[in-house]
Amino acid sequence: MEHNHTLNVELGNRSYPIFIGSGLLLQPQLLSQYVKGRTALIVSNTTIAPLYLEQIQNSLDSQNIQHDCVIIEDGEQFKTLEAVQTIITTLLERKHNRQTTLIALGGGVVGDITGFAASVYQRGVNFIQIPTTTLSQVDSSVGGKTGVNHILGKNMIGAFHQPQCVIADISTLKTLPDREFSAGLAEVIKYGLAHDAAFFEWLEQNITKLIARDADTIAQAVLVSCQTKADIVSLDERESGIRAILNLGHTFGHAIEATMGYGNWLHGEAVATGMVMAVDLSYRQQWIDHSVRQRTIDLLQKAQLPVTSPSDMTVDQYMNAMSIDKKAVNGTIKFILLKSLGESIVTSDYDPALLKQTIIHS
Amino acid sequence: MEHNHTLNVELGNRSYPIFIGSGLLLQPQLLSQYVKGRTALIVSNTTIAPLYLEQIQNSLDSQNIQHDCVIIEDGEQFKTLEAVQTIITTLLERKHNRQTTLIALGGGVVGDITGFAASVYQRGVNFIQIPTTTLSQVDSSVGGKTGVNHILGKNMIGAFHQPQCVIADISTLKTLPDREFSAGLAEVIKYGLAHDAAFFEWLEQNITKLIARDADTIAQAVLVSCQTKADIVSLDERESGIRAILNLGHTFGHAIEATMGYGNWLHGEAVATGMVMAVDLSYRQQWIDHSVRQRTIDLLQKAQLPVTSPSDMTVDQYMNAMSIDKKAVNGTIKFILLKSLGESIVTSDYDPALLKQTIIHS
Repeated sequence: MEHNHTLNVELGNRSYPIFIGSGLLLQPQLLSQYVKGRTALIVSNTTIAPLYLEQIQNSLDSQNIQHDCVIIEDGEQFKTLEAVQTIITTLLERKHNRQTTLIALGGGVVGDITGFAASVYQRGVNFIQIPTTTLSQVDSSVGGKTGVNHILGKNMIGAFHQPQCVIADISTLKTLPDREFSAGLAEVIKYGLAHDAAFFEWLEQNITKLIARDADTIAQAVLVSCQTKADIVSLDERESGIRAILNLGHTFGHAIEATMGYGNWLHGEAVATGMVMAVDLSYRQQWIDHSVRQRTIDLLQKAQLPVTSPSDMTVDQYMNAMSIDKKAVNGTIKFILLKSLGESIVTSDYDPALLKQTIIHS
Repeated sequence: MEHNHTLNVELGNRSYPIFIGSGLLLQPQLLSQYVKGRTALIVSNTTIAPLYLEQIQNSLDSQNIQHDCVIIEDGEQFKTLEAVQTIITTLLERKHNRQTTLIALGGGVVGDITGFAASVYQRGVNFIQIPTTTLSQVDSSVGGKTGVNHILGKNMIGAFHQPQCVIADISTLKTLPDREFSAGLAEVIKYGLAHDAAFFEWLEQNITKLIARDADTIAQAVLVSCQTKADIVSLDERESGIRAILNLGHTFGHAIEATMGYGNWLHGEAVATGMVMAVDLSYRQQWIDHSVRQRTIDLLQKAQLPVTSPSDMTVDQYMNAMSIDKKAVNGTIKFILLKSLGESIVTSDYDPALLKQTIIHS
């Protein structure tokens, strides 16, 4: 299989390409053609910077683009307004103007912080996503959701701000620890479960090769995931409708992340368990049969992801955390639930007693 | 003259009305019809809250809208990311969801902070502007520019986020101190100077009545100012063109505010002096004759506004502060300069030596 692909997120004058392939970071023009001004600020973290920062700096140097960088600490617990403040201070100290471009080099945390900083600096400057983790390549770098956490809730401060382009170099996944690689697969599996039964079946057949880091299989999984996300985002940029199905597992998952403390459960791990809970509630509602629930658990387990709720988390902790979910309306929590494998709905029309059962038994 | 007027800012699906009149805060439905959900958060400051907060709370109570409030300290020096953080913490503690509405009750600082908090809370919720100062009624509450200051530059962190409506109750100006009332007139005079020679002449004829707080004259000045701003914003929401002329005097003015310390010079005072400097530079460029310069100074002085630069501010301090102005491109500072009375342009095509002369002699 040929590794290099270009997808397009169709959003009128905010449309942009996603480049997926191997060795893309070694192509200086690919990046520089999307840096409109003559200046850039690279944002990365302490884990990724030692591996890839120099490549990006060399690319910019070779195209005579002036650049600065900000290195933030690695971890969801650092996805805060303070990190945004740090980036903006550097931008001002180095006199970056409205024509500058922010470049996010790292995983979802770096992308979310950088995108949000770009959206608010001087009321909005350009930015480019260079995702280096499975999770960010298949999900968070595409679609323009940016933001940071508040101690009382995940992603509660943010903006919709679309990048100029996304460069997903799958070579960078080689350096990713197993735990993080698996966490990203949770979002890959989500696309199949929520929206594409055939892709779910392909994943069932290829999960062993994925976990073994087979390059062709990874490229295919990233490609289908990005294509699905791009299609849905094009239909519903601001999540007033169908885009919400991409939050399958996230209402439960965010509650786990917030309650257990950001960074203790990886986002993908919490989403994996959250998807099992969503599927379990769908099953208790008698919308799907037992086999869908079991296949979901089997696939997530083969992807080396957790499928049971933290043993010490109470019903009250879930309900409290979920009541401030962004999808909540007047205190009613909305969930993404399955009508069948590959078909999901956003609904508040579920039996609260069954929800409680799901939480107790998960 | 009839005091009650409705203007419309035409921005497609982001269009909204501006209500201008006396006693508007005593009409509960006017406000409540624009609160879409059943919850609201009022943001005000320590000066305005004792005067008008109860009226707003009573209005919401009478319409069965649940509400909370955040009172911030009064002054430009409190227009910070920390104030936004405080608002968001209250929203989360009180479990406000995406359907909530933020209500800004106060001057430009309250409006800018509240609008920005609304733009980033859960990636965007509704907000309503209830401006209670001349400056905010004629300028900052209209047009969707929101944001906060960074210690290195004014309004460097922000977003474009349009309100649901603007309620400009000119009765609230009665409680405004003279110094603040005059500061707002700087922006009124700006509309005449930058865009409307006939209005400038009307102001020359009516400045004494304005300063004497004649209600009809104030209502007329607010109306024409809002109409001019609404027209320009409708043409150029994101300031890619003509909207920039509304920054006449602001490049110099922001430099004065930042260098002298926020809150020491009121925004309108700095803009008044900044306009004199812009007019002076236009005169030195031989684009306008001496009479325009003199009439500008005379009108501003009659409005009890400062017309000379702080005596201890150096050329370097101006140049340093202005080089990070949002309009700067690759180190070149853009100014709004006059081609004639009521006709202005955005330009970087001026003689730097004359700019230096303007700074030294202002």
